[in-house]
Amino acid sequence: MARYVYRFGEPLEDGAAGAGRARALLGGKGAGLAEMTRLGVPVPPGFTLSSELCSRFLPRESRDAASEARNDSKLGFDADLRDEVEHALSDVEQQLDRRFGGSSRPLLVSVRSGAMVSMPGMMDTVLNLGLNDETAAALAEETGDARFASDTYRRFIQMYGNVVLDIGHHHFEATLGRVKAAQGNAQLRDTELTESSLRDLIKRYKALIEDQSGASFPTDVREQLWTTITAVFRSWNNARAVRYRKMQGIDASIGTACTVQAMVFGNLGDDSGTGVAFSRNPSTGEATIFGEFLPHAQGEDLVAGLRTPLPLTASSAVPGSEANSFEALLPKAFESVVEHCRALETHFGDMQDVEFTVEAGKPFILQTRAGKRTARAAVRIAVDMEREGVINQDQAVLSVDASSLQQLLHAKLPPPTALAENGVHPIARGLPASPGAASGAIVFDADEAVERAAQGQDVVLVRRETSPEDIHGMKAARGILTASGGMTSHAAVVARGLGKCCVTGCGALQVDYATGTIRIPKSEHVSEPIVLSRGDEISVDGSHGRVYLGVLDVEAAATVPEFDVLMGWADKRRRMRVRANVDTPQGARTARSFGAQGIGLCRTEHMFFAPDRLLAVRCAVLATDDATREQWLERLEAAQREDFEGMFRIMQGLPITIRLLDWPLHEFLPVENADFESVAEALGIAVKQVRQSAHAMKEINPMLGFRGVRVGLTMPQLYSMQVRAIARAAVRCAQDGAEVEPEIMVPMVSLAGELSAVRSLVDTTMRAELERCEAKLPYRVGTMIELPRACLVADELAQYADFFSFGTNDLTQTTFGISRDDAAHFLPRYLDELGIMDVNPFVRLDRGGPGALMQIAAERGRSARSDLSLGVCGEHGGDPSSVQLCEELGLDYVSCSPPRLPIARLAAAQAALRRSSEKS
Amino acid sequence: MARYVYRFGEPLEDGAAGAGRARALLGGKGAGLAEMTRLGVPVPPGFTLSSELCSRFLPRESRDAASEARNDSKLGFDADLRDEVEHALSDVEQQLDRRFGGSSRPLLVSVRSGAMVSMPGMMDTVLNLGLNDETAAALAEETGDARFASDTYRRFIQMYGNVVLDIGHHHFEATLGRVKAAQGNAQLRDTELTESSLRDLIKRYKALIEDQSGASFPTDVREQLWTTITAVFRSWNNARAVRYRKMQGIDASIGTACTVQAMVFGNLGDDSGTGVAFSRNPSTGEATIFGEFLPHAQGEDLVAGLRTPLPLTASSAVPGSEANSFEALLPKAFESVVEHCRALETHFGDMQDVEFTVEAGKPFILQTRAGKRTARAAVRIAVDMEREGVINQDQAVLSVDASSLQQLLHAKLPPPTALAENGVHPIARGLPASPGAASGAIVFDADEAVERAAQGQDVVLVRRETSPEDIHGMKAARGILTASGGMTSHAAVVARGLGKCCVTGCGALQVDYATGTIRIPKSEHVSEPIVLSRGDEISVDGSHGRVYLGVLDVEAAATVPEFDVLMGWADKRRRMRVRANVDTPQGARTARSFGAQGIGLCRTEHMFFAPDRLLAVRCAVLATDDATREQWLERLEAAQREDFEGMFRIMQGLPITIRLLDWPLHEFLPVENADFESVAEALGIAVKQVRQSAHAMKEINPMLGFRGVRVGLTMPQLYSMQVRAIARAAVRCAQDGAEVEPEIMVPMVSLAGELSAVRSLVDTTMRAELERCEAKLPYRVGTMIELPRACLVADELAQYADFFSFGTNDLTQTTFGISRDDAAHFLPRYLDELGIMDVNPFVRLDRGGPGALMQIAAERGRSARSDLSLGVCGEHGGDPSSVQLCEELGLDYVSCSPPRLPIARLAAAQAALRRSSEKS
Repeated sequence: MARYVYRFGEPLEDGAAGAGRARALLGGKGAGLAEMTRLGVPVPPGFTLSSELCSRFLPRESRDAASEARNDSKLGFDADLRDEVEHALSDVEQQLDRRFGGSSRPLLVSVRSGAMVSMPGMMDTVLNLGLNDETAAALAEETGDARFASDTYRRFIQMYGNVVLDIGHHHFEATLGRVKAAQGNAQLRDTELTESSLRDLIKRYKALIEDQSGASFPTDVREQLWTTITAVFRSWNNARAVRYRKMQGIDASIGTACTVQAMVFGNLGDDSGTGVAFSRNPSTGEATIFGEFLPHAQGEDLVAGLRTPLPLTASSAVPGSEANSFEALLPKAFESVVEHCRALETHFGDMQDVEFTVEAGKPFILQTRAGKRTARAAVRIAVDMEREGVINQDQAVLSVDASSLQQLLHAKLPPPTALAENGVHPIARGLPASPGAASGAIVFDADEAVERAAQGQDVVLVRRETSPEDIHGMKAARGILTASGGMTSHAAVVARGLGKCCVTGCGALQVDYATGTIRIPKSEHVSEPIVLSRGDEISVDGSHGRVYLGVLDVEAAATVPEFDVLMGWADKRRRMRVRANVDTPQGARTARSFGAQGIGLCRTEHMFFAPDRLLAVRCAVLATDDATREQWLERLEAAQREDFEGMFRIMQGLPITIRLLDWPLHEFLPVENADFESVAEALGIAVKQVRQSAHAMKEINPMLGFRGVRVGLTMPQLYSMQVRAIARAAVRCAQDGAEVEPEIMVPMVSLAGELSAVRSLVDTTMRAELERCEAKLPYRVGTMIELPRACLVADELAQYADFFSFGTNDLTQTTFGISRDDAAHFLPRYLDELGIMDVNPFVRLDRGGPGALMQIAAERGRSARSDLSLGVCGEHGGDPSSVQLCEELGLDYVSCSPPRLPIARLAAAQAALRRSSEKS
Repeated sequence: MARYVYRFGEPLEDGAAGAGRARALLGGKGAGLAEMTRLGVPVPPGFTLSSELCSRFLPRESRDAASEARNDSKLGFDADLRDEVEHALSDVEQQLDRRFGGSSRPLLVSVRSGAMVSMPGMMDTVLNLGLNDETAAALAEETGDARFASDTYRRFIQMYGNVVLDIGHHHFEATLGRVKAAQGNAQLRDTELTESSLRDLIKRYKALIEDQSGASFPTDVREQLWTTITAVFRSWNNARAVRYRKMQGIDASIGTACTVQAMVFGNLGDDSGTGVAFSRNPSTGEATIFGEFLPHAQGEDLVAGLRTPLPLTASSAVPGSEANSFEALLPKAFESVVEHCRALETHFGDMQDVEFTVEAGKPFILQTRAGKRTARAAVRIAVDMEREGVINQDQAVLSVDASSLQQLLHAKLPPPTALAENGVHPIARGLPASPGAASGAIVFDADEAVERAAQGQDVVLVRRETSPEDIHGMKAARGILTASGGMTSHAAVVARGLGKCCVTGCGALQVDYATGTIRIPKSEHVSEPIVLSRGDEISVDGSHGRVYLGVLDVEAAATVPEFDVLMGWADKRRRMRVRANVDTPQGARTARSFGAQGIGLCRTEHMFFAPDRLLAVRCAVLATDDATREQWLERLEAAQREDFEGMFRIMQGLPITIRLLDWPLHEFLPVENADFESVAEALGIAVKQVRQSAHAMKEINPMLGFRGVRVGLTMPQLYSMQVRAIARAAVRCAQDGAEVEPEIMVPMVSLAGELSAVRSLVDTTMRAELERCEAKLPYRVGTMIELPRACLVADELAQYADFFSFGTNDLTQTTFGISRDDAAHFLPRYLDELGIMDVNPFVRLDRGGPGALMQIAAERGRSARSDLSLGVCGEHGGDPSSVQLCEELGLDYVSCSPPRLPIARLAAAQAALRRSSEKS
């Protein structure tokens, strides 16, 4: 005979069919209960009807479920099944000394769905089943709380009516509204209903059911049970669940199980109660139980928040009121809960968040799940649990959410949602250009920023956009805020390099330098126009791209002693190496302190932001003849050589990928009159001519314009200069005995011919330079892969490349056809309102678009050249999910900005662990 | 015994081994000679040494080829081979009554390489072999031209020395220079050398050879022959040839054959001569022989151009000098050449370009190949030859270069290279925005253009850029020239719609409206600055993007009666349908006249260029509330409905793909003060506010910005308005009994969510509208595929699309990361100077990039939906090579601008024919 019913709860469960098989038969919920029983953890007893039964109900799908449900013979409950259920039910009755449908100590049960795969909220559940007028009265008597009994009863009728009899919620809501109105106010909260109103409501609900379903509400608790079981099984095929399975690719044939479990009561007296326990402190990670307990109460009371709960432990109570703790009130139950929490934590290998109820002194665990925690706690818990032998190092590494490390590493404000709950709303939104948070007085001018900072004042530098002339002010400010510019604007790039928090592209700001004011017009975010003046205080949240009025509590970056231990374990488990995107010796130093194993992207154009170099850059670009250009390039060469030398020495033989100029022309061309004049003077030509040349270089779509290798091949002197600077710097270091092997990278390549031409330019220049110095120097030449065509012809490119580095920012822009700087018009709506995108593809690598192209590129590139090395140098290198994709593609390294290195290191380790566990 | 030597020339060739086998053994040249012999065409007799011999010489590769070459026993010429060659040689001697090495009537031969696959210029050839002092004297006597004999002799020594003995050209050049100096002037042309100088040169050459090779020049003609054969075979493996084979993927093992052929002499007297004959007139296509003849001359004399050649036929001679024609002078030889030309034409099925020599009254055909011809001639020849039964219709269709039809369809200037040869150089270059050519007086103002045109003057409208306010002037002008803007700028789009020639993006022009002048500064193209004023005359070439000073001879579009016949044949052979890109009822009419089978792209935003609609567009975009926006949109709806109705009626049931707005915002926003004011007035808001709103819409990279579906989903009223306009127009036509099935296309889609959202917007709006009208209407919804991501997720998109239309312009831009409007900084240099690209990818679809993505999209799209229809609507639809790619991808149609439709029709037919011949 097939067996369909599996018991759980004391003394022993039946579901010992092996974890996988148990889950298939019992669903996640049923298997979990069986598992807890096996661990000796007391759960309210009950039984699970196997998912194999599910198919019995499905063919009979019919609109008229209610009428069919009443005739259970049609539903295929054969005598055997009824027997099995009755046996299991009577076990539950015995264990709890309660009777199903009994007129004293009635047994109430919950009937829940639960498939092998979690489908949260998709199927149906009914609670408090077993109530009728008689048992409700018994419950009132037992709990001494008539209001509770009535409220529970009316809730059950409503749930049963809705789930089993398919009567729309709005009918019950309308009835409830009428009862509230009768009590005097239709806007009353449910908790404000009097007991007599509740009794009235029960009557009306029964009438409603009779009216809608054509039959009276069943008082027979067994009829309640069987019709509900039927409805729960049938909810496997409701439209919501079918759609969800389709979306998630879940096999429809697996079916749901149905779990029937006793309800327990925390409101039976002073030796009862309900609570929540974390097996460790979720804020600090400290290894003591933490939580709340509400005596003489049901779980709903805890949620409703009408009474203040007590702490669990005496030691965490307010000094002097230690007696008001779970530990002091019910020491035996407390000990038992602590013990079960520990057992569950050990079993699941993770900190647990446990709901429990004490019924007449006897604790029951209602639910357990992995507890949410702060990053700080996560790190400490992971390391502690490994030390305690609960988990191993692999598990410790996997237990910490890599992206949460961000919280540890920067000063921060509470997240916008948390602030909103406290009534603090941003006055403007922009792009999260550089993480961290800061408060300070508004200044509009770099010099003023320096002055005020020198006087010890915290300032936030606010500009329409920044330019190289503002750098000293950016250094002096606590934070930077710009009205325009994107994630790769000057302000964003420099701020990340300086480690300053920064919000860019804050389009609502109307910055008026002349009057020294910022105007923020009325909008959906701001109910009245706001005008701020120089010296007014604001706070900026560079991690979320928000601006707030006034000084908010900025929490400093945390120090967690266990952090280094965890990172050490992670580093041992990584397959991919981790490099940093930095452009200066200072940046290289920071990168090493964050654990960089090399520089994955040195953007040589960023070296030109320094004001003393800017004139030389402008003159080199705007020179009217080659000789003059060469002259200015020589000055730049000296500057670059110095920087390269510094970086080579700091990196001590670790690889450094130097990207040849990728000219963002519009960021370098003069804008102000004075700039035009100084260039004209330096070049000895008319200002008008400088203006004309600059004008001729203006582009409609600079992103797709005269950039990278296109400039390099059109003005080959530029790249030659850079290669010479690299060669000379490297040779000098090598002569001092340092190990140096520069990697020279060509940007914006889409054609093999481009790469081959630059490669021979590099080789020729290098050879000449090395002959001149009588030196030898290993070096490698590779290319950015940042255009779709480069991915498609990766096999051709690999003929001329020692390495590929995916520039995922630009690759995302061109693959989607979205300019990151211009996306503000629609991308936020796509993400929030319209739900067309789940995640911003500039934050997480999109698998369908750029990810697919990367796969093509990796395959084709390696097919042409098996020793090709592959890396990523877009900011995606610091996003855990993107790092996971890089691991799947078999890349050799990821590179990101220094502050994100710990995230990349941990994410790379996790990806490697997941991959090896998939393989095994 | 293996056979290695194959004879050709009268009376009968030996190379009858079947065409394929013959080519493999004899090489292209040898097989051709054998073939001509078989056709009864007299070729100078000779024989071919099979390519199977080639490998004999290859292993012996050595630097010291010269010394080895002297010892032929080492070279593996066994007695059998020598016998074969001697027999063949003696056949040649008998046929021509000449003796190899003979002291009277000496036989001279050429020794040439020739592989199965053409490798032009890669291997070696020696001419006039068989000369020594004795035979040279005999030649002088026979031709009565001692200078000729000496010159031929010295050329032979030089060639032999270089090819066989590997003595560098510079040695011979230096010696030649010394002899010229001795004659008095080192700068003399070779033809100016006296006979005695040539004798001197022969001596010096012999000395040079002895000096360089260590042995004297061989006087034994058989030694000359064998060493040369060896050298020719060995040239298969010279560095040049090896590199070429690698590049072209030619199998190195096939080897070369070696052809030994008698030299014939056109300078033996008045019954000798040399000429070139086309089997038909290459300019007009007329079916009469056409060419030139030079009596008593060798081929070099014809090339040198020192004497004026005669016409071939008496009828083509200058009236009165009919006797001075090949036909009159040597009627028998003439008849024979005519006959051979006809035979060759019939055999090859194509008009032939034949070189011939008459030696003592006997004509020899030296070479034949397909003749170059004008488009006009090509069309006529194709149709004539089919009528004559020489070729079938398939062959006729394949014989015309589709892209050359461009020449027929527009007024034109000679190509820039031809003008340059005549000293006419452009004063400026720009983009070939709309084909055709025109001359006229410069006007800067649309009104002035209309006035002057009304007075019968031809004008060219010159603007920095055009705007919708200029349209009446563009209509009145013969041509349009703008300083800025790309191939898709307003000027370009409108000009193509109007069928006017247009050059855009002519960056060198400094247009000053105030003074009414154009300044063109000094540059590589212009040696002195040029200033032009209103009324000055210029010519513009819209097919090549060139501007010339003054009025040039513009040739009107041709009418060729055979054109329609050929297009009829082409249309019967096409698999793909051909549609047009047009935006107005007028455009639809033009499209039908060019044979469009539907509209593949109606760009609804182009309907807004009309000045009366522009204000409404601006107000709709800049409206501050939805109600006002709706109001302006209603006006636009009425205008669009009218246009759609017109197009539906003209297209009479042919499919029309209407693209929903793809907003090029920057082209529509107001620029001038007056525009801002009129918008402000119309909207009843402050000018400042209009300016602010317009400013907020400015983008850094509009190409990748707020466009297409992104606008459509953010302001759904726009798309609803358009769908309503389509529905209402279609219903009206349907009510009159017209067949209408609009195809609604969504632009700039990269995400399935976008398409699904618009699809439901379209369905909802359509349903509401059709219910309102109580009408039924079939319609289809599809998407542009113009972004790389769209190609990669084509399977997802296909779930919501009835059709895909590839927007290859934008797809090329994003795949390469090149903005077409900004490419002028580097693309021309990539194409010309640097040779990094062969072809402009905006002209010919690039197979490696966008082509590869299209293939992915077609496969994935059809895998998800087998009845998905696929087309192309970028301008590539009118490029033959791109059309070929579309055929290979199995697309259903191509769509292009109306003037390119004939090209598309012919190219589609050719692609289909090629594809079916590949399959069979």
